[in-house]
Amino acid sequence: MTCWARFRSKHGRRGFGTYDGGVIAECEGDMFDDPRPTGATLAAGAFTLENPCLPSKIVALWNNFHALAAKLGKQAPAHPLYLIKPGSCVIGPDDPILRPAGYAGKIAYEGELGIVIGRRCKQVPASDVGGYILGYTCVNDVTAGDVLNENPDFAQWCRSKGHDTFGCLGPVIATDFDWQAAQVTTKLDGALRQNYPLADMIFPPAELVSRISHDMTLEPGDVIACGTSVGVGSIRDGATVEVRIEGIGSLINSLGSR
Amino acid sequence: MTCWARFRSKHGRRGFGTYDGGVIAECEGDMFDDPRPTGATLAAGAFTLENPCLPSKIVALWNNFHALAAKLGKQAPAHPLYLIKPGSCVIGPDDPILRPAGYAGKIAYEGELGIVIGRRCKQVPASDVGGYILGYTCVNDVTAGDVLNENPDFAQWCRSKGHDTFGCLGPVIATDFDWQAAQVTTKLDGALRQNYPLADMIFPPAELVSRISHDMTLEPGDVIACGTSVGVGSIRDGATVEVRIEGIGSLINSLGSR
Repeated sequence: MTCWARFRSKHGRRGFGTYDGGVIAECEGDMFDDPRPTGATLAAGAFTLENPCLPSKIVALWNNFHALAAKLGKQAPAHPLYLIKPGSCVIGPDDPILRPAGYAGKIAYEGELGIVIGRRCKQVPASDVGGYILGYTCVNDVTAGDVLNENPDFAQWCRSKGHDTFGCLGPVIATDFDWQAAQVTTKLDGALRQNYPLADMIFPPAELVSRISHDMTLEPGDVIACGTSVGVGSIRDGATVEVRIEGIGSLINSLGSR
Repeated sequence: MTCWARFRSKHGRRGFGTYDGGVIAECEGDMFDDPRPTGATLAAGAFTLENPCLPSKIVALWNNFHALAAKLGKQAPAHPLYLIKPGSCVIGPDDPILRPAGYAGKIAYEGELGIVIGRRCKQVPASDVGGYILGYTCVNDVTAGDVLNENPDFAQWCRSKGHDTFGCLGPVIATDFDWQAAQVTTKLDGALRQNYPLADMIFPPAELVSRISHDMTLEPGDVIACGTSVGVGSIRDGATVEVRIEGIGSLINSLGSR
């Protein structure tokens, strides 16, 4: 299995490559189109990981796990329900989550699986999506909870989930990841808050990619955040959230103060 | 006043430049960062206009006109209400609007003013937004009306307004445009359906750019679609919609059949 990563060297140079055992084997070209190994490697400590892709959009699912639907008393939907988080909200491993300007309310974490699109994808049958998925990453889909329902006429999904730093992605993109056997765990300051099986998804990855690709064109690097399950909660200022999926890794971000 | 446009020559070459009297004065470089005239011109008939920018996101306002709010019985909001339309939905002048795959329901037009961001914009005071706005364009904010409220638990704003071809922009980006004196008119197969004053906006452009830039970073080429007013309706297959704003021009798109 290959893991793709984007990095920043300690001298500030950005690049990408494959990531194995803490070492980067650098590549050149385009991660999504004929990447070529340069032969150079970066040892652990010589770089930090950045968000592993630069999505033009994150398609973020709502109500995609049976357990959370049951808890909220919602029917399973007939088609994936989602909002769009803009590319401008993306941060990577260890980057701080920042409070929106002037906002003193609750900020929620949601640990999720992210599907990373590998090539342009439009109206692809579910049986054919394999070639369009580069791999999988961890997502912390952050929400300004008090913004969401602030207005009685209009649920502010895009605003409450679209603030800068509210789309945490990483640490890497794992190819050939077996989602059916995996759990998503989320720890808040080390305490386990979410631990749910991806097998409980209402629409699994192939179905999500296919159906959403019939709604809109997905671009290389776009991310589908598969939705969360039970155990969502608030992040206090200064608290640290770790979203972990075995086979991908741990995505760790803290809520910084401005 | 300068009007910026992107074009495709009759030989298929794409470029950009200033547009005056049907003639393009070509530029090179970046429209948003030190564009330089090449000295070449393209005469009318030698090119077609494309969408004048390639937004990373369209921030699309809901309930931003007093007349429509009154008609719908809604309070004026305390903060701009919006959803995000992805860059993948954008088309330009004369490009066909296409029905989403498998969708036989209503498709609605909404004639709107679009603000085109000129440079990266984050937490900018309303008094300072002038330098961050490149200019203004026309928008037809198209919606798959029957998708929007298909699910009782979740209004599908991003899906119903995010389909490919549902973000019509153009024909040009007009700088120094006086929105306060302008009307938006929308004609459906030549019949006037919308004719509303931009002065009726709840949040005017400077306020929109400032407030939204406090919510999320706006990038060069991003578009804020200012919302629509009364007169929204459905487009039959084959019908043509013209959104016209004096000082910008006419944006014309037809609903094609697949």
